[in-house]
Amino acid sequence: MFLTVMTVAEGLAALAPSRRSATVAAAPALGVVPARDVRAGEPLPAWARATVDGFAVRAADTYAASESLPALLEVAGSVAMGRAPEGAVRPGTAMAIPTGGLLPDGADAVVMVEHTSEPMPGHVELLRGVAPGEGVLQPGEEAEPGDVLVPAGRPLRGADLGLLAAAGIGELAAHAPPRVGIVSTGDEIVPSDTPSPAPGQVRDACAPALAGLVREAGGEPVLRGIVPDDAAALERTLAAAVAEDDVVVVSAGSSVGARDLTATVVAQLGEVVCHGLAIKPGKPTLLADCGGVPLIGLPGNPRSALVVFRLVGMPLVQRVAGIVAPPAVATVRARLARDVPSAAGRLDVVQVALADGVATPRFGSSALLGPMAGADGWLRVPEPATGLAAGAEVDVELYR
Amino acid sequence: MFLTVMTVAEGLAALAPSRRSATVAAAPALGVVPARDVRAGEPLPAWARATVDGFAVRAADTYAASESLPALLEVAGSVAMGRAPEGAVRPGTAMAIPTGGLLPDGADAVVMVEHTSEPMPGHVELLRGVAPGEGVLQPGEEAEPGDVLVPAGRPLRGADLGLLAAAGIGELAAHAPPRVGIVSTGDEIVPSDTPSPAPGQVRDACAPALAGLVREAGGEPVLRGIVPDDAAALERTLAAAVAEDDVVVVSAGSSVGARDLTATVVAQLGEVVCHGLAIKPGKPTLLADCGGVPLIGLPGNPRSALVVFRLVGMPLVQRVAGIVAPPAVATVRARLARDVPSAAGRLDVVQVALADGVATPRFGSSALLGPMAGADGWLRVPEPATGLAAGAEVDVELYR
Repeated sequence: MFLTVMTVAEGLAALAPSRRSATVAAAPALGVVPARDVRAGEPLPAWARATVDGFAVRAADTYAASESLPALLEVAGSVAMGRAPEGAVRPGTAMAIPTGGLLPDGADAVVMVEHTSEPMPGHVELLRGVAPGEGVLQPGEEAEPGDVLVPAGRPLRGADLGLLAAAGIGELAAHAPPRVGIVSTGDEIVPSDTPSPAPGQVRDACAPALAGLVREAGGEPVLRGIVPDDAAALERTLAAAVAEDDVVVVSAGSSVGARDLTATVVAQLGEVVCHGLAIKPGKPTLLADCGGVPLIGLPGNPRSALVVFRLVGMPLVQRVAGIVAPPAVATVRARLARDVPSAAGRLDVVQVALADGVATPRFGSSALLGPMAGADGWLRVPEPATGLAAGAEVDVELYR
Repeated sequence: MFLTVMTVAEGLAALAPSRRSATVAAAPALGVVPARDVRAGEPLPAWARATVDGFAVRAADTYAASESLPALLEVAGSVAMGRAPEGAVRPGTAMAIPTGGLLPDGADAVVMVEHTSEPMPGHVELLRGVAPGEGVLQPGEEAEPGDVLVPAGRPLRGADLGLLAAAGIGELAAHAPPRVGIVSTGDEIVPSDTPSPAPGQVRDACAPALAGLVREAGGEPVLRGIVPDDAAALERTLAAAVAEDDVVVVSAGSSVGARDLTATVVAQLGEVVCHGLAIKPGKPTLLADCGGVPLIGLPGNPRSALVVFRLVGMPLVQRVAGIVAPPAVATVRARLARDVPSAAGRLDVVQVALADGVATPRFGSSALLGPMAGADGWLRVPEPATGLAAGAEVDVELYR
């Protein structure tokens, strides 16, 4: 078999899925991905409102008012919250108005109460002039009908939820979280709830971890169980996953025999794009395009599998989820505690613990999850570099 | 009433809640917060396993083996995945073993298949010597019984889920997401699903937005509805929230009258810690301690309310959630597009849009949510500063 090795960027480009997950009607909620721009159907706010406590006036009546020469207006009533004003502001009059009150007819500005005094009951003195529009939120100032409230492809955040609620939008066209089929393989793998695995058996660590990362990326994990090292059984399970899911992830086994088995079966279901990635850990990664459904054959070592899924799987899931603006990863600059060797042409991913601005690499067999679970984040030694020296400034991508 | 104004740090310190949310039994899942360190109950892995494809051997038998002088061993069988080996490795013999296979009795190392050849059926030539333990993952190398697998107070991540699954831990003591009561007040506020608010009414934008931020912080929003500007009604609703929830958030109204009403009612339910925060926007914030339940009276303007809730509410929710290591906020360095004025002694929070490394402030009335919904993040002009100059390097905290 001809073995193709790609960089992560090449693999992602070669796999670029054309499909997006289904469009569904969804209530606005944190993380929901709008399938289209969501636009205002009405002006926001609908009416002019006061932005300060004070008096609704005609700005022309306040011209040149000052502390030494106040303007005197008759108070023609007050505006109650939540109701249309009873009455209007005519020349020479004002109405008391609280912040958020609907601006009465005739008024075009609000004078702050701090700039007024009450010389006698039923009257107000303005100690300052106001320009038209001052102290007023205009109709449509938040949004005019047709304005984009939230853009397509950006997961909804807190402020978006407020804006949609203000606009009375209780439903929007959204991308469903992509279904991500997760297949575990291996004669030695038993479910993680097995109390006492028999000698030689190991509990499935990969599927639960991948399910978490799928959710972190905005997908819906579909756990398709554990398949023994048997071509027919694997083909049945993978074919069902490819038919029903938007992305398929399979642990391709850690032995050469198990990997070859997976590669053979996958080749029957789609086009194998590459047999390896130029990364460490994670080289034995299989990428395939199964009729538009991306399939990732992960290395058998759990930590390698998680590194690859973070680098390749999560961006793919986000893309299929219709997310064009994924949330940024938190990074922090730190000094490297010791030398990190690497080979040119290969991306090295190194788990690190952070303390006092120093990043200490956590090494260990890639069969161990501990170095990752106990790390604060990771750093990348990029393809061209042959390593990083102790003391070098590095960007650590933080786990969350 | 004596008005106390505090910085955000002072407010957070003064409110420090002693309570933590209830401890419950939970299945491991993304974001679950362990209430106690979770420890291994058994050695991981339980048995020595091969980390490479090759031959299980006694290291002593490989001493000084080289390409020019290979060691010849008899192949006494092979180890199948997922099963106890049939047989043992005696001096002068080897067993074929795949990656992940259980190391047979008698063997103490595995020679990679790449370093072997088969001179005749039933025999293997070793072209390199191995030290004891080479090619082997030892029992307990991931964790010994009693080792901490995941620490208390750090929300579970993908790799944690894998480690817990490997250890067969399907349930742990976790902090329940804190109940965060959200109370909207104001005669003008109507539910956000109101199709056509009457003149003067506005839909409740704050509660849905706060619910999103509560979830982002790891809490469980409890929407307690809209209360009119009526002391008795507000006291009933707030008393129920204080009795049943772990944190209470109330929109304190935007007019002075509404704020005073809230302050009066809150003073009957607990101790008011401060009547204002030295921030912009968000100054009219009320903080109170109601018998260990922190209560936040937010400004009436939705954007001010969200700024305050991000600065004060989310850290409080995380603390009550038992989160001692909150996920880091993603930040990016950028150059400021224009001058940002501020006043010394006050923290200014400025919404910014980012493009090509330039942060452009998005201003506008704090009654508008658009400047926040359309921003990529915010920057802080700290208390001592009197403003930032165009071109200054700033750290922008990104929304997600």
